[in-house]
Amino acid sequence: MYLGKVYVTYKESVLDPQGEAVKGAIHRLGYTEIEEVRIGKYFEIKMATVERPEEVIEEICDKLLANVNMETYRYEILSLEEA
Amino acid sequence: MYLGKVYVTYKESVLDPQGEAVKGAIHRLGYTEIEEVRIGKYFEIKMATVERPEEVIEEICDKLLANVNMETYRYEILSLEEA
Repeated sequence: MYLGKVYVTYKESVLDPQGEAVKGAIHRLGYTEIEEVRIGKYFEIKMATVERPEEVIEEICDKLLANVNMETYRYEILSLEEA
Repeated sequence: MYLGKVYVTYKESVLDPQGEAVKGAIHRLGYTEIEEVRIGKYFEIKMATVERPEEVIEEICDKLLANVNMETYRYEILSLEEA
């Protein structure tokens, strides 16, 4: 079995209003040393053993998990014996 | 400057209906080898250089980013020169 860890974030060029809102809340808590907050989605995907897990993860990201116009993704794949 | 990477996920004991929904969508795309999907939040936090960045990140997580009753978090901190 494999464990895919996928991180989906906005592209640098895309404004992240939610991140701005969280930064404001953090500043109101007194942590003014925080300069930027960007928020993304994190997926943990357990997958039965397949030949090319990278291909499966990439296809799922391209077709479903990430809006490739505005978002970018990166991933790690662990064999669940190592996870 | 530091870059904090924070991963907030549901505790194992908490049902993840959104993850179940995404798994269903993935199966309908034909990827039936996917056995489980869990969804979380991912934060990238840029912070000015402070003495104990770990303490700042943990306090922000405990106070704001994670609902410690249902969620758990882990984080990494990179000096932005390494990022």
